[in-house]
Amino acid sequence: MLSEKKMSEIIKNISYNYEKEELFTMKSGHQLPNRDTIIHIIMGLRQIMFPGYFDKDHLERAIPEYFLGHNIIKIYDSLSEQIRFALTQAAQPHPNENDILEQTDKICEDFFSSFPRNQTLLLKDVQAAFDGDPAAKTKEEIIFCYPGLFAIFVYRMAHELYRMHVPFIPRIMSEYAHGRTGIDINPGATIGEYFFIDHGTGIVIGETTEIGDHVKIYQGVTLGALSTRSGQLLRDVKRHPTIEDNVTIYSNASILGGETVIGKGSVIGGNAFITSSVEPGTRVSVSSPELTFTEKGPDGKNDLFD
Amino acid sequence: MLSEKKMSEIIKNISYNYEKEELFTMKSGHQLPNRDTIIHIIMGLRQIMFPGYFDKDHLERAIPEYFLGHNIIKIYDSLSEQIRFALTQAAQPHPNENDILEQTDKICEDFFSSFPRNQTLLLKDVQAAFDGDPAAKTKEEIIFCYPGLFAIFVYRMAHELYRMHVPFIPRIMSEYAHGRTGIDINPGATIGEYFFIDHGTGIVIGETTEIGDHVKIYQGVTLGALSTRSGQLLRDVKRHPTIEDNVTIYSNASILGGETVIGKGSVIGGNAFITSSVEPGTRVSVSSPELTFTEKGPDGKNDLFD
Amino acid sequence: MLSEKKMSEIIKNISYNYEKEELFTMKSGHQLPNRDTIIHIIMGLRQIMFPGYFDKDHLERAIPEYFLGHNIIKIYDSLSEQIRFALTQAAQPHPNENDILEQTDKICEDFFSSFPRNQTLLLKDVQAAFDGDPAAKTKEEIIFCYPGLFAIFVYRMAHELYRMHVPFIPRIMSEYAHGRTGIDINPGATIGEYFFIDHGTGIVIGETTEIGDHVKIYQGVTLGALSTRSGQLLRDVKRHPTIEDNVTIYSNASILGGETVIGKGSVIGGNAFITSSVEPGTRVSVSSPELTFTEKGPDGKNDLFD
Repeated sequence: MLSEKKMSEIIKNISYNYEKEELFTMKSGHQLPNRDTIIHIIMGLRQIMFPGYFDKDHLERAIPEYFLGHNIIKIYDSLSEQIRFALTQAAQPHPNENDILEQTDKICEDFFSSFPRNQTLLLKDVQAAFDGDPAAKTKEEIIFCYPGLFAIFVYRMAHELYRMHVPFIPRIMSEYAHGRTGIDINPGATIGEYFFIDHGTGIVIGETTEIGDHVKIYQGVTLGALSTRSGQLLRDVKRHPTIEDNVTIYSNASILGGETVIGKGSVIGGNAFITSSVEPGTRVSVSSPELTFTEKGPDGKNDLFD
Repeated sequence: MLSEKKMSEIIKNISYNYEKEELFTMKSGHQLPNRDTIIHIIMGLRQIMFPGYFDKDHLERAIPEYFLGHNIIKIYDSLSEQIRFALTQAAQPHPNENDILEQTDKICEDFFSSFPRNQTLLLKDVQAAFDGDPAAKTKEEIIFCYPGLFAIFVYRMAHELYRMHVPFIPRIMSEYAHGRTGIDINPGATIGEYFFIDHGTGIVIGETTEIGDHVKIYQGVTLGALSTRSGQLLRDVKRHPTIEDNVTIYSNASILGGETVIGKGSVIGGNAFITSSVEPGTRVSVSSPELTFTEKGPDGKNDLFD
Repeated sequence: MLSEKKMSEIIKNISYNYEKEELFTMKSGHQLPNRDTIIHIIMGLRQIMFPGYFDKDHLERAIPEYFLGHNIIKIYDSLSEQIRFALTQAAQPHPNENDILEQTDKICEDFFSSFPRNQTLLLKDVQAAFDGDPAAKTKEEIIFCYPGLFAIFVYRMAHELYRMHVPFIPRIMSEYAHGRTGIDINPGATIGEYFFIDHGTGIVIGETTEIGDHVKIYQGVTLGALSTRSGQLLRDVKRHPTIEDNVTIYSNASILGGETVIGKGSVIGGNAFITSSVEPGTRVSVSSPELTFTEKGPDGKNDLFD
């Protein structure tokens, strides 16, 4: 067991770090947004968007208005508190409490009003997944467990809050989905209707990406920036590509750059690496992947890969 | 705070969506399978397959029969209920309750009877991981925390249920493993003995893939379809490759197409992109990856990547 | 419902597997480390390293010494027990209880004493992420939700325990981070100051990798071994590359081999596949990715990708 002296020393050293670091606002007294609460909110929102699929009990399902009333009020209270914390933290060191309360109310009203529209969008995303994936047995299966749909659902929620300039929360939401699915959609991206992500792990969709309707994206696709060398100087600059309607992008393709536009109806083959625009209706493929075929030696010695 | 009038309006609009959408079966009264319960079942199955590794307490471990009896009965009750829900949902709108009860019993009996065989398979998978990975210190470590083993364990359980045509549950299981590990093994794939997945993130193994014995696969490997453009028309068609015995596939290689066969003993190098069959005993590598080496300018301006 | 006879038979068969498999130490009576407890410890460590960001309540934050004292003692008790279990398991079949208690105390003292140093390192990692990512609005956001920072935090904790030869626990920690983030950093790697991981999914950093200061790595990068064919014979051999200071490695690049050194200040372009050393100050890019552009036919038939 650690001696009391040793323990005091350790505590003193860490306390010293706390005091000199402005990020550790131990003394300010206000509360930061809470990641666990925000995850809880996401789960509540999912119950509303896909009623019956993620509830433990099903007693109240018979009367949608009761189910909804109960759930929405719970989420409202929790989310409005988190938004208030987030706005207060972002306004440090001089937050104006009244302004923040007013802003919070406006944001919540707009956010909750967006539900029917977003639910309609999500049902179109379910349809796109069903139409696009021969492994999908039913649409219910897609709602239950397709990671692509989960990532799109969280994106659509987070994007609403991003558009209203809510700090912290949209990114906490999208990074939660990223952690659960391996699909990293920045809440700043704009994405049209009937969006389908298959498999999904490793997908990155950057903050200033624009995606049209009926777009299909496979695992490992990066819609990214050419260089982020200039760091914070690039903030708010369009750094990520534009993908027009009806484009399909196969696995592990990379499309980079803010001026890169993939014209509508194009198909991008697996592993393609694209840094400039592509005309509408183009099929891009990595030409004859150069492979070497050799017979394996009897002992496999001196071999590169095995 | 949202006015009561506004709140009623929002609730009315969502309720309207609920009513017109057949996927939201609020009124049907029957219960859907529950993802959380199914995850719970997976965790219980893991305790049975790897006794002592994932229990909180260890009191009953001394007498395996008691430990097993207790755990198996708990899982049996929970799983048979979920199977009943799944079969009922899949048989809408006219489920036959008696048929479903009978089917459920048959499925459960077969599933639980498969445990000793699957446990033996899993111990071989542990051995394959230990033999294949110099970073593995002990076999215990592999059981405790190798994501590849977890994904294979969930696959072997889900595959049993898939073979018995259980709806929803196999995919919910495999997508849970996908979320936790980044390894997406469709429960429809068939996989032989001594299967080893190293690192694993980004792996996709499609529904109609066939994998032999002693196969090793690294992170980012796709065993996928050439095109899914025809969507639901391709259902039940073999769309994914066949990998014969003793094949090693290094990181980020893609092998696509239902007619593609990787002959036994072959080694596929990292980043290879393969869309046709490979003879047995072949070593395939991306030939001299074409790279450009330039000295960096003094300021790095006009550079593509930085 | 399964008949009692059938149930007994299943239980008997599994029990038989248990008995003949030495990995299932049901009878040995000692306890194995527990993954859930270790995850709990990670979360506690995060509260200490980033005070105020991950607490439910904020009552005690006003007095850092109380907050710290309370939290550190809780973690100390829990971690020292897990270390004791791990050392005991690794010392089977003849653990020396006194030696193990002594070792545990020494390890805990060193581990807890490393906190201020590691906290300083982590604050530099936060700074590196802020400087490197134009999508980062604030440093707080990075602490709240950047998966790269979470993976680096867990790595820095796990690496301390790895250096002290604690069995099982470092890898259980790093695989937890791997599962949550898709970033697989083996606790044996050595990593300098100001390390930045962007997006992160699919990154693999092998056990004997060495990384300098101010290094930036993007999603899908593998710092791996050339071949692991010799399996356990390669244990403790340097199998993974060395990355010198100020190197940037863009998405999906692979750098392989224990003798491969990426010289300082180099920039490795996306998708590069490198198996030999690169001089300092070099820019490496995949030369003119060979792409084929074709117009899509009217019906899209006979097409490879769509």
